[in-house]
Amino acid sequence: MNRFRLKIEYDGTAYGGWQRQKNAMTVQEKIEKALFELTGEKIGITGASRTDSGVHALGQVAHFDSETKIPPEKLFLALNTHLPPDIRIAASEIAQDDFHARFMAKGKHYTYRIYNDNHNSAIMRNYSMYVPHKLDLNAMQEGANVFVGTHDFKSVMAAGSSAKTTVRTIYSFNVSKEGNLIALDVKGNGFLYNMVRIMAGTLINVGQGKMSPNDIKNALETGERTLMGFTAEPQGLTLNEVYYNCPCFGKNLDMNGQM
Amino acid sequence: MNRFRLKIEYDGTAYGGWQRQKNAMTVQEKIEKALFELTGEKIGITGASRTDSGVHALGQVAHFDSETKIPPEKLFLALNTHLPPDIRIAASEIAQDDFHARFMAKGKHYTYRIYNDNHNSAIMRNYSMYVPHKLDLNAMQEGANVFVGTHDFKSVMAAGSSAKTTVRTIYSFNVSKEGNLIALDVKGNGFLYNMVRIMAGTLINVGQGKMSPNDIKNALETGERTLMGFTAEPQGLTLNEVYYNCPCFGKNLDMNGQM
Repeated sequence: MNRFRLKIEYDGTAYGGWQRQKNAMTVQEKIEKALFELTGEKIGITGASRTDSGVHALGQVAHFDSETKIPPEKLFLALNTHLPPDIRIAASEIAQDDFHARFMAKGKHYTYRIYNDNHNSAIMRNYSMYVPHKLDLNAMQEGANVFVGTHDFKSVMAAGSSAKTTVRTIYSFNVSKEGNLIALDVKGNGFLYNMVRIMAGTLINVGQGKMSPNDIKNALETGERTLMGFTAEPQGLTLNEVYYNCPCFGKNLDMNGQM
Repeated sequence: MNRFRLKIEYDGTAYGGWQRQKNAMTVQEKIEKALFELTGEKIGITGASRTDSGVHALGQVAHFDSETKIPPEKLFLALNTHLPPDIRIAASEIAQDDFHARFMAKGKHYTYRIYNDNHNSAIMRNYSMYVPHKLDLNAMQEGANVFVGTHDFKSVMAAGSSAKTTVRTIYSFNVSKEGNLIALDVKGNGFLYNMVRIMAGTLINVGQGKMSPNDIKNALETGERTLMGFTAEPQGLTLNEVYYNCPCFGKNLDMNGQM
């Protein structure tokens, strides 16, 4: 029995998110099905991030155990032949026996995309949130800077969710624009439920002048969810990369080197 | 009665191309239906480029005549409420009475995208052609350079198609790479049927070392379709912009300024 690690890309448009659930097809389920078809084993996989319905990934990481004798570095090619084209395994390898994709993750990089024009994008509609209003990018970057650092992020966690601690560290939060597409790039040691989408919605409010960077500062201090902005739409969000204190997939994904 | 001009974006994935046809829903048909719903008039529209099934557009241009009293610069907003999200009108305006989107086009800019990795892209799968082989970008650029200039392009026209003259001018043909995505950007005064896709397929052959830039030169001279490469897949192709000798949509799309 070996522990395996996968790097996974998916277009979340057609799925009810990462995690297995009733009433919706999920990415996890598709991969477990592909593993069963390939190995004949009923294998449960654990992902680093439980992405929501409509959210995309370029660098989701997952682990599982298997008896398979398929060469580990070739496994991803075999798996791809059993997966739909909107889910691709980018890499596969043997991991240490106690590797855990979620608990051992030291950091993550998410991108939130906003399409900012007088009409939505026909091409980017499933990969961005459409915002027709004029947005002040400088104010948005100033707002993003408020989130950087170690804070209690209770105010940007979805109401009703629970976490042992709501203290997290954000290492960087960059606002950039290329054509009509605005990208919010955030890297941190961990993210609470809906945290990136609530921060994105808050920054969209700041961009429109409905909130100021100082309002974000105050909201963070009080911990009041209602003082932050709306939860931005899921399709704008992409999980880019998950970082570990180990060389993974042939490159050192140690946070210190990457973040 | 006024002549109108539209700038149109579409995700061609779900359509049987631009032009109205039996047995497949087309982009033209969707826009004509939206115009009928909006104006009550049965309006036929003419596009600058008859893009194939699966081909995308960011800057298709079309014209039509209508009695509508909707302010021309607002028409695109009204039309978008009658269109599916994978077709967006980006701009609308009154054109001169004899404006013709196809016959008056002075040039076009197409991009052909190739996804080059050991697995296809989950996100870009409908917007690029997947090529797993190692590609020599320098050789591809050298090959692209052979196409630049005024030539008889009979050898890169789909067999069986007809054109009054097969002489065209290509102004520029640039090969670039960002991450795993290779972009072939070509601008010219006109393109024969399947010409961009055949040139793309030929450059993919050159990238793999199956053909040399000199083979392209010889094939161009003989005019033999069979001496060129394969027709690259449609989903890699995007019509970026159509150029006219007039200020259109508030910017001067004169070729001299743009190309």
